[in-house]
Amino acid sequence: MQALKSKLRQWVHQRAMARRAPVRLPWAHWGYTATADGLQLHGVPMGQLVAQYGSPLHVLNVPRLLQHLAEFAQGAEGIRPTLCCSVKSYPVPGLLALLLANGSQAEVISEHELWLMRQLGVPAGHILFNGPAKSDAALEWSIANGIKAIHLNHREEMDRVSAMAQRLGRPVRVGLRLTASATGQFGFAAADPATLDALTQAIADPWLEPVSLHGHRGGLMRTADEVAAHVALLLGFMHRAREAVGWTCRLLDVGGSLAVPTQVPLSARARRMAWTFGLPPDAPAPADTLSPAAYSAAVCAQVAAYCSRHALMVPEVVMEPGRALAGDAQALLSTVLELREAQPFSYAVTDVGTAVAPSACDEYHQMGLAARAPGQPAPQGDPRVYRLVGPICHLGDVASLAWQLPPLQRGDVLAMMDSGAYFVSDASSFSFPQPGVVAVFADGRVQPLRRTETSSDMVHRDHLPTTG
Amino acid sequence: MQALKSKLRQWVHQRAMARRAPVRLPWAHWGYTATADGLQLHGVPMGQLVAQYGSPLHVLNVPRLLQHLAEFAQGAEGIRPTLCCSVKSYPVPGLLALLLANGSQAEVISEHELWLMRQLGVPAGHILFNGPAKSDAALEWSIANGIKAIHLNHREEMDRVSAMAQRLGRPVRVGLRLTASATGQFGFAAADPATLDALTQAIADPWLEPVSLHGHRGGLMRTADEVAAHVALLLGFMHRAREAVGWTCRLLDVGGSLAVPTQVPLSARARRMAWTFGLPPDAPAPADTLSPAAYSAAVCAQVAAYCSRHALMVPEVVMEPGRALAGDAQALLSTVLELREAQPFSYAVTDVGTAVAPSACDEYHQMGLAARAPGQPAPQGDPRVYRLVGPICHLGDVASLAWQLPPLQRGDVLAMMDSGAYFVSDASSFSFPQPGVVAVFADGRVQPLRRTETSSDMVHRDHLPTTG
Repeated sequence: MQALKSKLRQWVHQRAMARRAPVRLPWAHWGYTATADGLQLHGVPMGQLVAQYGSPLHVLNVPRLLQHLAEFAQGAEGIRPTLCCSVKSYPVPGLLALLLANGSQAEVISEHELWLMRQLGVPAGHILFNGPAKSDAALEWSIANGIKAIHLNHREEMDRVSAMAQRLGRPVRVGLRLTASATGQFGFAAADPATLDALTQAIADPWLEPVSLHGHRGGLMRTADEVAAHVALLLGFMHRAREAVGWTCRLLDVGGSLAVPTQVPLSARARRMAWTFGLPPDAPAPADTLSPAAYSAAVCAQVAAYCSRHALMVPEVVMEPGRALAGDAQALLSTVLELREAQPFSYAVTDVGTAVAPSACDEYHQMGLAARAPGQPAPQGDPRVYRLVGPICHLGDVASLAWQLPPLQRGDVLAMMDSGAYFVSDASSFSFPQPGVVAVFADGRVQPLRRTETSSDMVHRDHLPTTG
Repeated sequence: MQALKSKLRQWVHQRAMARRAPVRLPWAHWGYTATADGLQLHGVPMGQLVAQYGSPLHVLNVPRLLQHLAEFAQGAEGIRPTLCCSVKSYPVPGLLALLLANGSQAEVISEHELWLMRQLGVPAGHILFNGPAKSDAALEWSIANGIKAIHLNHREEMDRVSAMAQRLGRPVRVGLRLTASATGQFGFAAADPATLDALTQAIADPWLEPVSLHGHRGGLMRTADEVAAHVALLLGFMHRAREAVGWTCRLLDVGGSLAVPTQVPLSARARRMAWTFGLPPDAPAPADTLSPAAYSAAVCAQVAAYCSRHALMVPEVVMEPGRALAGDAQALLSTVLELREAQPFSYAVTDVGTAVAPSACDEYHQMGLAARAPGQPAPQGDPRVYRLVGPICHLGDVASLAWQLPPLQRGDVLAMMDSGAYFVSDASSFSFPQPGVVAVFADGRVQPLRRTETSSDMVHRDHLPTTG
């Protein structure tokens, strides 16, 4: 039975692979060049980066990151949106510093992130404070220093911020976090009459200065329709608030939630075919997701048209792109540690698994041979399919369910595209060190932003017991 | 429609909660005492720990940990098993040091874990090296220093270890990692003839000294039947190997995989009732899972009986308990940061979410009010149901889907039982710092094992770019 199943899997695999090769995107999509020796970014070979900075390693494509930033900032119809980097999405100080140096303001959701922005010299007036868990200390600093705005997550928080502002004797700019419906721990439902009541209360409160609306989407957007519906929710409330209580919204924060064009969840079918038969998933069509430029233009045009139609003052439009800004501007290099031949696909054990690439195997992430093991002749033979697994003793520790590659050997370096958002935030140090991060500039200069974790790092908060 | 749904949810919630209270286990099960002010462990109030060491905070119950260790080590029928701590399960040096000081040897799966054991003074002869991803440096040290055994994950690794031992001029003790079937990246399938071939090859190899069998279960065990089937797989292969090639197994490593009695995955129904209607899950019956003592006795009795029946030499029996050793000897304290009233349940935002308690909301974890906010009158009123959510802007950031508690206020401290295994290993620093760990001894002494993460810690590997 076991043998029959195995034969069936092999047969399906061979038939499907013979019929057609998996659809792949050109490396140029990410700014990489494929050479006989592997991949290069702005003339820098990936093998050189791993040799110098260790493995695993995130490689930040600085021009691509800054190009996305510029596209987001472009706007339309005379509206130039304010960009706020989403610290939680890519919490690497060096990456954030690049964004801040190029005109970005900041969005934080914790005392730590507020601290980090202060360390990087961001003035309070350039920081938006979001999230459901704002500490007393962080709120006090925000109020005392005139933060751009505190976005209130719910009614109880509004009362708390007001009392704190009163205690400090300093009014504070606030906004309401709006959601489409009232489920969950986040936000004020836009259609709920209680939300207008909350705004009215804030207007009447001498310690609160309601200036903004912040949209919490709670799910990714890819299409113009999804974006338009989300922005319409905010504009509709803004208009109703103007009609009902004469309130003028000065800052319209559409949040983030724009997806990465090439980082698309695998369909249940694609996942099953990859899991059972070792059939690599096809690349998605990048055009199915709005580009940063198209998104920015669509949002700003919609705001401009709505405000013009309803004779509303055009507010400052704020965008907080997380994924779409950095996601496809970074790649994760891994090293092949072990190989195991099997049918219909073999296993390559690498130093990248779910601990440092948590949801990678459930999404499309283009993989490639980034560099050959140094000083060894490359193995010959036809490309074959590998399951790329992590180093941990868990069957689910998979980086890529099935990927066609030239025959591999230990020491080969692989690249996984689209590691720029949430990979670092979600990473754990499960038995193995976390990756470093290096930045590659247009002229081929390389700068380390975060060094690869060491064993000492992994226990640097520890003490041994002196009794027991 | 929305309003109707909401009313229905409220009605179901109230009816169900009025009918009966959720089943809870007595705090004494974990060694805690419930007082009017919250929970105490060996006379130490939880509020005192958070005040002194910060929040969130893991609290290790040292006597319970060491009692489990002693129970595992007890064995039966004259067999006293060797205990190897599973470094990946609870990678805190202070916790590991307590186990090592009380007779434990060690099991590692990475160069980092090997390094950590060396730092703690564990001799090579007390270390087993498992896992699919052993680095060259780690293997070289292991061979050169006479490691207890390297457990070979697959055929290619065997060839690699042999070549390395030859190069170092020193034979090395090895074992085969056995699995029930051949799926996945792990191990040799016990029933596959190729596995016996691999053993034969190892016996013939002058650089390999096959001494052991290691069982990779790949899923948790709770019952005597599950344990017996797993051990029978190893004994069956051991016997066949003796018959076929005259090989004597000197070390039988049954691995880990024993579950924590009180940490049971929620059924799909319990999860749905908690998610939709806010109905807290019932406690599982601890007796449904083998205790460490019962497990140890069952395994050893089975080995003794089998060896006696088949005239086999009784091997050294090794156990590598992860979850069952430390899981319920540690609890995770959190602090209430915000409250949001809602129906049919309210939200308490705490500093513990999926970043530091990754799968907690999918399992039963008994929760309790551990301490009241200091210096404030406790709110009065009937107990009510809360969803305990983490601090991150993600609907799935939940620590407990529904839990009945006295009315909460900001600053209250909550305890989550059974955080001893994999919580630290899987934790990430998503926008918020990771918990510290303190050990509480039988006489009420408290020792910090790991300090709570700081903002500086979270960026201590970082550099800012000097160009851009």
